[in-house]
Amino acid sequence: MRLGRIGYVNCYPVYGAMDRGIVAPPATLVTGTPNELNDRLADGRLDVSVISAVAYAQHASQLELLPDLAISSDGPVRSVLLLGRRPPRELDGTRVLVSASSRTSVLLLQELARERWGVQIDIATAPTEPGDLARLAATDHEAVLVIGDAALLLRAAGRYPHVTDLGEEWKRWTGLPFVFAVWAARRDAERQAVRDVHRALLGSRKWGLANLGVLAEQAARATDVDLGDCAEYLAGLDYGLSYRHLAGLTDFLRRLAARGAVPDGSLHFVSAA
Amino acid sequence: MRLGRIGYVNCYPVYGAMDRGIVAPPATLVTGTPNELNDRLADGRLDVSVISAVAYAQHASQLELLPDLAISSDGPVRSVLLLGRRPPRELDGTRVLVSASSRTSVLLLQELARERWGVQIDIATAPTEPGDLARLAATDHEAVLVIGDAALLLRAAGRYPHVTDLGEEWKRWTGLPFVFAVWAARRDAERQAVRDVHRALLGSRKWGLANLGVLAEQAARATDVDLGDCAEYLAGLDYGLSYRHLAGLTDFLRRLAARGAVPDGSLHFVSAA
Repeated sequence: MRLGRIGYVNCYPVYGAMDRGIVAPPATLVTGTPNELNDRLADGRLDVSVISAVAYAQHASQLELLPDLAISSDGPVRSVLLLGRRPPRELDGTRVLVSASSRTSVLLLQELARERWGVQIDIATAPTEPGDLARLAATDHEAVLVIGDAALLLRAAGRYPHVTDLGEEWKRWTGLPFVFAVWAARRDAERQAVRDVHRALLGSRKWGLANLGVLAEQAARATDVDLGDCAEYLAGLDYGLSYRHLAGLTDFLRRLAARGAVPDGSLHFVSAA
Repeated sequence: MRLGRIGYVNCYPVYGAMDRGIVAPPATLVTGTPNELNDRLADGRLDVSVISAVAYAQHASQLELLPDLAISSDGPVRSVLLLGRRPPRELDGTRVLVSASSRTSVLLLQELARERWGVQIDIATAPTEPGDLARLAATDHEAVLVIGDAALLLRAAGRYPHVTDLGEEWKRWTGLPFVFAVWAARRDAERQAVRDVHRALLGSRKWGLANLGVLAEQAARATDVDLGDCAEYLAGLDYGLSYRHLAGLTDFLRRLAARGAVPDGSLHFVSAA
């Protein structure tokens, strides 16, 4: 069993106990960026992994979801921000820079732009990692979509007058949580081993949610973001997958399927033990 | 394998080919009313059955859904009607009669009354089968919720000035299909046999959807409803379970869970073959 793991702060609550040897992972942990893990799970180099909601939908025929586990926000997510020189509803016809590394966030942005704000935006890819932020200022744009640590840092810098949290905006629009990532197994992976990994992930999450303070300290050390901001960020994330999360997930996927951005399909889960 | 089957018209497209011997059911068919089947699946007298969305949620810990199969409407359903002497938004404080035989429809009515129409209604159970319709007139009420054949017949009688189709009203409110029923297997049922039943149901549905005219004729003979109305009714139903159906299903269930009408939970599916 090869289990994919992202080193980002939003995954600490699920992998933290495994990283510390408190829960033994019944699999080899493979660390990568979201895009790397998406690709490796799709081509069989991983058996189970956290992957974006959109990557799940793109490869749904080869995958099954692990029950009761996801990364969502039910309101502000803090780490997926549109930073603008104008408000979102005044971005019609302007250029918006986005990171190449988060297709889910870009699709969410496009959905909000088109359906909620009623604007047509011109999306251009640009490096938006923390080290790229200084260079960003010199690039022609009216707004930039930043995710992860870069979002937490760039908001604190206060360079853009209009900050739109896409998790919060989705919630205001639909009344639902937004599911950024899920855990999935390949359908050809050995079932019992997948269930063992699932059980270990749930056990590790239980420890993580009971120890968010420890994880916030680790996050502050790893990212240069204030401890208070890290704690607030972790407290605002949700790792369950109950009806309201599924409602948010499928509402997003049916919108994407309706405009051809992902194949239409259904959710398939690993069978209960 | 014991497979539950409802004799109602809305199930013809899924069971029609089995009833005619065109698709061999790899199970013993057990016919019952919706409530009977819900109870039998919950207590283990059935292995697989069509059940209401609400019954699934009530017994989710013992059940798994069959992928890609459900009964929904994406707009008017025609067979779940609120017939009123006043419009829905003027029903505050009045008595509404409902059938005891459709808990899903009653919960949908309560949700719409409270959240969409902003009215408090006093719900009372009354017999509302086709044979009871004459007696209904003598019972004190401002509106009545009728389902199934009775709805098709009572609308045609034109006795109530205000007809609200709950499938259509849900769609206007949420933009989503409404899922009335799903197919589920007990978790302790033999997996391979469940998959065989699932495959047979999908095969039978394929025949049914290609032969709606034949099924409409059968329906007209069985119910005294006009052939044209039967054809329209069957054409308006949908038997898939893709993202938009799941979005409708989970949006309904998260609302019910939020007010304690069903336990909070998740969707679990029979694992892919």
